[in-house]
Amino acid sequence: MTITMRPAERRDLPALIALYRDDALGRLRESDDPADDDAYEQGFDRVAADPSTCIYVAERGGEIIGTFQLTITPGLSRRGMVRATIEAVRTRADLRGRGVGARMMEHALHEARRRGADVAQLTSDLSRSDAHRFYERLGFSRSHAGFKRSLTSP
Amino acid sequence: MTITMRPAERRDLPALIALYRDDALGRLRESDDPADDDAYEQGFDRVAADPSTCIYVAERGGEIIGTFQLTITPGLSRRGMVRATIEAVRTRADLRGRGVGARMMEHALHEARRRGADVAQLTSDLSRSDAHRFYERLGFSRSHAGFKRSLTSP
Repeated sequence: MTITMRPAERRDLPALIALYRDDALGRLRESDDPADDDAYEQGFDRVAADPSTCIYVAERGGEIIGTFQLTITPGLSRRGMVRATIEAVRTRADLRGRGVGARMMEHALHEARRRGADVAQLTSDLSRSDAHRFYERLGFSRSHAGFKRSLTSP
Repeated sequence: MTITMRPAERRDLPALIALYRDDALGRLRESDDPADDDAYEQGFDRVAADPSTCIYVAERGGEIIGTFQLTITPGLSRRGMVRATIEAVRTRADLRGRGVGARMMEHALHEARRRGADVAQLTSDLSRSDAHRFYERLGFSRSHAGFKRSLTSP
């Protein structure tokens, strides 16, 4: 299937929210309450205003079938290494296992290199063992433990 | 001991490089070849030019005893959640286990909240088990697997 990649636009918001919800963890974390639409729109505006990060969509025949976010961060350690962080990778549930994710990661790594990154990094929930195998097949090494801490709950 | 936190300045570069080298992994990855000074200086300039990220130093009596990097990244998933990513955390070897790291993380989480972050995240090399216990004591949960991939080696 012919898949094109492009930065997300505001009109993609409903499709993006549907993708985020369309998985076992997403159902618990995302909202389908229209009262939360503002929160997603504000999130989109913050991303659009930040040159260090970009949300991409994978499109096929006018339909959005996947998404990921790529953030480029300069640093000082390792001789001034530049990092590319990949987040929020999602493929539409009915199209998983058909190369959409690999196509998105190919684009992510291409963009990361183009923007001067020396390393790509991502974390994946411990429960997502299929995703772990997927990233290892793409040349990623599971070298780190990933820690998270909420800043809003006490 | 009285420790102050402030953003790193260019004059801190030699002390920062010494901190990055001052550990088992750092010795393998950092350079003490003067020919690499340019790479660190260019890294510093890229960080200084990027409003989304900041390198902090912990100072005591005019000496730099620790450092960390904090990056704020807006997003769309989880109702437009803003992430704070902590990287490159180092404490001078002779002062480890004396609260410097805890003081730095307290400052990192304070700054993250002040800048609107909803979650703090970091990865730690699988070999750093002391660091893993440290982050868990600070309320971080080891919920993710961390993957890295070089973009410069084939």
